[in-house]
Amino acid sequence: MAPPLTRIGLAGLAVMGQNLALNIADKGFPISVYNRTTSKVDETVERAKQEGNLPLYGFHDPEAFVNSIEKPRVIIMLVKAGAPVEQTTKTLSAYLEKGDCIIDGDNEWYENTERREKEVAELGILYLGMGVSGGEEGARRGPSMMPGGSFEAYKYIEDILLKVAAQVPDSGPCVTYIGNGGSGNFVKMIHNGIEYGDMQLIAEAYDVLKSVGKLTNEELQSAFTEWNKGELLSFLIEITADIFGIKDDKGDGYLVDKVLDKTGMKGTGKWTVQQAAELSVPAPTIEASLDARFLSGLMDERVEAAKVFKSGGFGDILTDQQVDKKQLIDDVRKALYAAKICSYAQGMNLIRAKSAEKGWDLALGELARIWKGGCIIRAIFLDRIKQAYDRNPNLANLLVDPEFAKEIIERQTAWRRVVSLSVNSGISLPGMSASLAYFDSYRRERLPANLVQAQRDYFGAHTYERVDIEGSYHTEWFKLAKQSRI
Amino acid sequence: MAPPLTRIGLAGLAVMGQNLALNIADKGFPISVYNRTTSKVDETVERAKQEGNLPLYGFHDPEAFVNSIEKPRVIIMLVKAGAPVEQTTKTLSAYLEKGDCIIDGDNEWYENTERREKEVAELGILYLGMGVSGGEEGARRGPSMMPGGSFEAYKYIEDILLKVAAQVPDSGPCVTYIGNGGSGNFVKMIHNGIEYGDMQLIAEAYDVLKSVGKLTNEELQSAFTEWNKGELLSFLIEITADIFGIKDDKGDGYLVDKVLDKTGMKGTGKWTVQQAAELSVPAPTIEASLDARFLSGLMDERVEAAKVFKSGGFGDILTDQQVDKKQLIDDVRKALYAAKICSYAQGMNLIRAKSAEKGWDLALGELARIWKGGCIIRAIFLDRIKQAYDRNPNLANLLVDPEFAKEIIERQTAWRRVVSLSVNSGISLPGMSASLAYFDSYRRERLPANLVQAQRDYFGAHTYERVDIEGSYHTEWFKLAKQSRI
Repeated sequence: MAPPLTRIGLAGLAVMGQNLALNIADKGFPISVYNRTTSKVDETVERAKQEGNLPLYGFHDPEAFVNSIEKPRVIIMLVKAGAPVEQTTKTLSAYLEKGDCIIDGDNEWYENTERREKEVAELGILYLGMGVSGGEEGARRGPSMMPGGSFEAYKYIEDILLKVAAQVPDSGPCVTYIGNGGSGNFVKMIHNGIEYGDMQLIAEAYDVLKSVGKLTNEELQSAFTEWNKGELLSFLIEITADIFGIKDDKGDGYLVDKVLDKTGMKGTGKWTVQQAAELSVPAPTIEASLDARFLSGLMDERVEAAKVFKSGGFGDILTDQQVDKKQLIDDVRKALYAAKICSYAQGMNLIRAKSAEKGWDLALGELARIWKGGCIIRAIFLDRIKQAYDRNPNLANLLVDPEFAKEIIERQTAWRRVVSLSVNSGISLPGMSASLAYFDSYRRERLPANLVQAQRDYFGAHTYERVDIEGSYHTEWFKLAKQSRI
Repeated sequence: MAPPLTRIGLAGLAVMGQNLALNIADKGFPISVYNRTTSKVDETVERAKQEGNLPLYGFHDPEAFVNSIEKPRVIIMLVKAGAPVEQTTKTLSAYLEKGDCIIDGDNEWYENTERREKEVAELGILYLGMGVSGGEEGARRGPSMMPGGSFEAYKYIEDILLKVAAQVPDSGPCVTYIGNGGSGNFVKMIHNGIEYGDMQLIAEAYDVLKSVGKLTNEELQSAFTEWNKGELLSFLIEITADIFGIKDDKGDGYLVDKVLDKTGMKGTGKWTVQQAAELSVPAPTIEASLDARFLSGLMDERVEAAKVFKSGGFGDILTDQQVDKKQLIDDVRKALYAAKICSYAQGMNLIRAKSAEKGWDLALGELARIWKGGCIIRAIFLDRIKQAYDRNPNLANLLVDPEFAKEIIERQTAWRRVVSLSVNSGISLPGMSASLAYFDSYRRERLPANLVQAQRDYFGAHTYERVDIEGSYHTEWFKLAKQSRI
């Protein structure tokens, strides 16, 4: 007798795919799984057995896999963006029927999702691009999911997603229908850009505390553990506290000190920065985070440069000034929080700008809600963002929300102290200082851009507006200047 | 009797095109000119007459225009990038013959140039993408030109370009064959990105001197005039000094104070930032410049934000501290110069990275040489860059050139004072502080990126390298952490 049809399928059984499949089965939804390298199928089936005889069924053949799912069939792909997604879509489409649905769960470029959505639509197949955040652990226990594309397809599996997603008390499952087209991928991409910002800001807090404040790993662990009880409570602060506590298993001391200062990346941060430029949205904190990763990669050059400047008379740290550790920890906490507000303001405004361009009509507060659990940037802070957009869905910038404005005002002196200390110590805080410059520019009624525009009119006749009279003006600066040169 | 054939043709007679055509004619090369709107043709012919019966011949018909040029025909287009270039290329190609050549002189995206080069190659036509910098005045008197593409085509008109370009004593005409494909457009794009950086850094110098130092326009003019006698000697510093001296013709006071603080842009800065992300080259100063333009455009939001934070208790300038004007001017000059080195280091490294990717084999010192005259960023400073690459063509970064390193070491204390003063005054200096963070990161043997990589390995199993042992490692941080949590 043929086995009963399953509710959903999942193709692509690397760790993320395995874990998400087990999660779905664990929530009581019978699932079919498939992978081109068949050993992964058997491995997943074995895990399903071990983790409590979960209703998970493995297939070595794509046709049998597709046919094992009840109609309309829904298949989640968790394969690498680009060619593998292309190939898997093709393979599956050959057996799918009108009304079936494919979901791409990887970090795909949103325009690729939109192109594929149109391609499979010609076969009558529905398509979703669904960002999934939370890493391996999140996939197994409850990720944050950002499905965008066909609303009809979303509705087929809404019941599954609501149960599989991370559950946050008082605010529900960390999933919502994002919007049309590639909006799910786009929002996930910005989520990752924000994640770059968070990680960089934390690294800077670590750097100034360690390099200038001379905190030991024990003191760092204790500071971050304390921070994780307050306004900074978040997954990334929690794991950072953890990291400081872990001893090296291959030698003396702590593992974090043995990790090479070279950061990898996978493309979503790059896309975020490129989109910021495309959309004319300032995103200096996220840009600084990406640049910090690039600079971390220039290891050999940095070692050489350090020699050049050391022999030129200055060392790594420029001050010997005694700092009050307790005060510094407090200041850095405040600086980190204020900079974080700026970073999220940039990310949310990127989403809003794209939403306006594409007509996606995205609800920013709802995005903050589904990031409250499951994903890497999960934090108590996101609740405040949700509240800010609840107060005013058309908020121009998080900085001017009354609550955030108040928090920044309370923290700005400490923030300036930290940035200033770093400038004088020679310890770069690119993210925190870019955030501060962003804040000080954004709250400035008049910027020195009048000079830039005057220059542009001088050499390129690009015209300018005036502060006092309507209209567009051009001045023959050069001719007038000849008369007034000193 | 038919008039004798001309040496070269130029299509597209907006001000830049008119001026370049007149310049070519002025150097003794008979030129044919054409424009779709024929009144522009007559206007150019009239100007040629008035400016000394220059050998310039106007045509209302594209076929007659093409046929008036000696073979192999060379035609420079100065029409807007995108559709107009597409259209003009098409129109001209219809009458051109094998071996003829089209040159695009606008700021075209380099990949479009490479595509068109291939398209016209099918007709046997050669193609150059040639960046032209110098604005209207430069086009007429001598621009800096960056021709890339067909070397054969470059050779046809090398004699013309050498005479038409700006001439710099001791270093020759501001033109050179850049390289294959779209390299001319790419180099011009980065030139413009650097120009964004220069203009932003000057605007910041202005801001801190005016807002914190309380300098009057007279004092600003005097400071910039002085600066233009030293290491900062450049076109942009010169015109900035000019600008401060010009009185408002529509009211009291100085014109610069009436210019709205809203900066336009035309796309090359955006492309530069997007390419930096694409090439993994950190370019924080140029990014900050682009963001400053975006922020300048958010005028209404800034006015609202200023109100929010003023009512929250703090005004535009946070300090009332007395500054020594003379000291401040000196400090800001040094900060500007040091930040400028960082900005150029970023730009040159962008060019090098692209050159490596595309196999263009670009000579960075030679680029610095052709920017010494004619173009917007012309400056005595470029001579130092040329010398740095002469000393070491494989220099990893301008910062570690012995001369530049020395200059930075001499200026870094002043630079830090200026950035620190701005941080405490609430006056943002995004470009100068991003440059400083870039410098302090680049000269740092060990960055806090070890923490970022540890986090990535914690939540995503992305692995890490170690400082002491070769290889790639993964740690089960979470499992170990449970034992060591405090």
